[in-house]
This record gives sequence, C-alpha cells and structure tokens, in this order.
Amino acid sequence: MKGWLVVAGLGPGAAGLVTPEVTAALAAATDVVGYFPYVRRVPARAGLTLHASDNRVELERAAHALRLASEGRQVVVVSSGDPGVFAMASAVFEAVEAGPAAWRSLDVRVLPGVTAMLAAAARAGAPLGHDFCAINLSDNLKPWTLVEHRLRLAAQADFAMALYNPRSASRPHGFARALAVLREACGDARPVIFARAVATPEEVLHVVPLSQAQAEMADMRTVVIVGSSLTRVIARDGAPWVYTPRSVPVPE
Amino acid sequence: MKGWLVVAGLGPGAAGLVTPEVTAALAAATDVVGYFPYVRRVPARAGLTLHASDNRVELERAAHALRLASEGRQVVVVSSGDPGVFAMASAVFEAVEAGPAAWRSLDVRVLPGVTAMLAAAARAGAPLGHDFCAINLSDNLKPWTLVEHRLRLAAQADFAMALYNPRSASRPHGFARALAVLREACGDARPVIFARAVATPEEVLHVVPLSQAQAEMADMRTVVIVGSSLTRVIARDGAPWVYTPRSVPVPE
Repeated sequence: MKGWLVVAGLGPGAAGLVTPEVTAALAAATDVVGYFPYVRRVPARAGLTLHASDNRVELERAAHALRLASEGRQVVVVSSGDPGVFAMASAVFEAVEAGPAAWRSLDVRVLPGVTAMLAAAARAGAPLGHDFCAINLSDNLKPWTLVEHRLRLAAQADFAMALYNPRSASRPHGFARALAVLREACGDARPVIFARAVATPEEVLHVVPLSQAQAEMADMRTVVIVGSSLTRVIARDGAPWVYTPRSVPVPE
Repeated sequence: MKGWLVVAGLGPGAAGLVTPEVTAALAAATDVVGYFPYVRRVPARAGLTLHASDNRVELERAAHALRLASEGRQVVVVSSGDPGVFAMASAVFEAVEAGPAAWRSLDVRVLPGVTAMLAAAARAGAPLGHDFCAINLSDNLKPWTLVEHRLRLAAQADFAMALYNPRSASRPHGFARALAVLREACGDARPVIFARAVATPEEVLHVVPLSQAQAEMADMRTVVIVGSSLTRVIARDGAPWVYTPRSVPVPE
C-alpha cells in the first residue's frame, strides 16, 4: 500500500465542527500522530495505531509522521482548529525541507478546519467582519519585542485582532504587557472578547472594554479578540452581540 | 413554532468542507436566504423555501431574513466560506442594530465555516503558519487609501497576508496598485499564491515571486496569499509547497 500523510484540523472541539473530509481521512488512516489531547479526540479502532506525544516536540513529531508515511503507512497528523494556523502543518513542511529529498515526493495533503478565532467570533457575533489579523502571543518561538511591534502596527492599521496562546503557566507576564500596549494604542473603550474552550462543554465567553480586561481572564485555552475602532457592541438581555461593520466611512 | 435565524458558512465549495452542524441547520430550516450562487448550493426539498438575491443587497437581505425569523420561520442565511469573514454575519448584526428592538430578542446564531484563505493555504502548504492578516481589497465599502495604508503597515509588521476580493470587473485597477505597493514594501522575491475557486472543480493554484505577479492572475473567485519575509518555497516535482516557519530567529 502506498503511504500518505494528511495534516488534519479537528476544529475547536465539537464533533459538529469536524469536516466530513477529515472524518473520512481518519477512517482511512493506519496511524494518527499528534499532541495527546488532540489524539484523545480520535476514537480507537482495530487497525489504527495512535501515537500521542507531548507539547513542544512538533518537529520530532512531524519527522516521525513523515517516516511512517515513507514506510507505506497512511498517516493523519491531527491539530486542533485549523492545522495551518499556529499548528502542525508548518512543522511538517519544516521537517520536509530539512529531511531526506525523498520526502518531497511523498503524498502530503493539508485538510483545513475551523480555527479557534472563527469559532470564537461566531459565538460573539461578527467581530472579524472587516479586515483583521491573527497574532500568536507566545514568545517561545519569537522575540517578545516582535510581538509588541506587531500589536502596535495592527492597532495603527485599525485591524481587529485575534490573539492566540495569550498566556500560559510558563509565560505569565507577557499578556499583561500586551494589554498595556493595546490600551495605549487603542484606548480604554475598545471591546475585547475572551473566548475560552469554545465549542466544548467548558465554553465561557466574556465581553469587556479594554479598560476592564485583566491578564487573569485568559489562559492557554483562550482566544482573545480585540475589536477595531469601528467594532460595535449590541446590548441585549443575555450576552451582548459584538460585530465589526463591513464598511468604513469615507472621510469628508 | 418559535422562529430562529442561523448565519451559516458553507465553506469554499466542496461538500467535504461543510460542517455537520451547518448540514443539520439546513435540514431543520424552513427558509434559506442568500446570494444566488450560494443558495444554489442548497438542495431543494419539500417544505424549504429558497430566497436567492443579487450581490450588494446584503442589508436588505439580512433584514428580510430577520423579519422571517420574527414571524416564526426557521431561517438559514448562507454565506460562502465562513459567514464572519467578509460575509453575511456582519450585515445581519448591522440590520439588528438598525432594526426594531424586538430583533435583539431573536434566537440568532452564527455557525462558522472554512474560510477561503484557510482552504487556499492548505492547498499550498502552510503559508499562514505564523502571524498573518486578512484584508478585503474591495473599495466598495471603504476608501482605497485605507487599503494601501493597511497593506503598508501589514508589510512593516511582516505579516503574511490573505487578500480577499482582489479584483472584479467593476474594480479592474485597484489590485495592480496593491501589487505595486507590495513590491515596494516587500521586494521582488516574496512568494505569492493565487488560489482560484479552491475546493471546486475549477480550482487552480499558481505560486510566483512578487516580481511576476500580474493583476490579471486574479478575479473575484481568487484569494491571494502573500508570504512574510520568512515564507519558504519547497521546490519539488509538481506544484511547490509554500510554508511560513513557526519561529522567528531572535536577533543576535
């Protein structure tokens, strides 16, 4: 049997957000490779080997999956959300580029998924309805100065912003600094959405003005969306709706 | 029966990219409302009324859908891709905010989908694997000067960029100007992906350096992805893989 490698996005959590093409790839696989909480989402069955690994070993995991595929296995590398957004697809291609030339002839496909910011935005309304950016706040893989530089330029461009990996036990202080930068650049009234564990039973959403945003409101399961200067909050009974209008007025 | 309104993303085209929760909402609906090429993707059945409308009437369409839901109908507003990205979700909340107070009590839900840039990125490799932005190049709803301003700041931030609605018959010249701005800001070698009609039978992908990017390579069915300064092209037999590494080297 000819080997292949699929990098698949499982979406943010709910089964209703897993695309049929990902479900089909998992059904055809001999091996599933990934970070253990994502591998846990794949039902065990006869003929399927599950290879769960720890965080922060993305390149080794990618190389392992590529070796399996080159040996003729049908391999799915699983990511949460979309595999191309701060997830395993880049690691797989980094491993391909650094690996043996034969890996460039492998059948490698990436299957997109619903990334966290889109699920979070949908829950809140439509805060990403106009131009926006996505920034990974982790400085494990880039200098913190670059994070701040990008936040300032994104504010200057008046993008709505989706902030991934805002805070973790090993990086407790960066997100507080990011909020300070944003307050300076965007003002106190800017709406901020804290969306934790969207599309899981633990889902929680909070909408607050930037002045009330606290670093402790986020953890590694939270995606934070910061509105643009035009983002609107519609008050109502229950959670407000937050949306960014499609149009920007032409100045007089 | 109590009315509801769901704003649903049909994904970029293939049935394998429609989420199960969107399929379930369509199966429960009495009415489907949307731009006609998207409504055409919903199979007709007894008990389902299809309301197809033309382009550029998004607010009227949204108000129509809200009226139907307030009359007790079960309504799905369909968008291509994700409804929260340059699509109908913002128009629905704009109509809610401008409409009767009672609309704020309606059961309105947004169901996310696979937006065009994620499907295009998956086909090419992982060009959005690091920080990125999404910009709508249409100046129907914002001044062109703002488009150029955002392109320059995005280049300065070294974001990869996904450019939606690059070019249409009524806006033939903007995209050429956008490419000129990008060439000035990013240099000639920057990889550019033209992804047309991804996940449909008409799908075509081209990867070229910015120096060879021509406005005529894009139309309204194309999403254009411009790499960051770190984006890599892996040459191989067949289409190259394009990816942006997860990490940025810390300067010495």
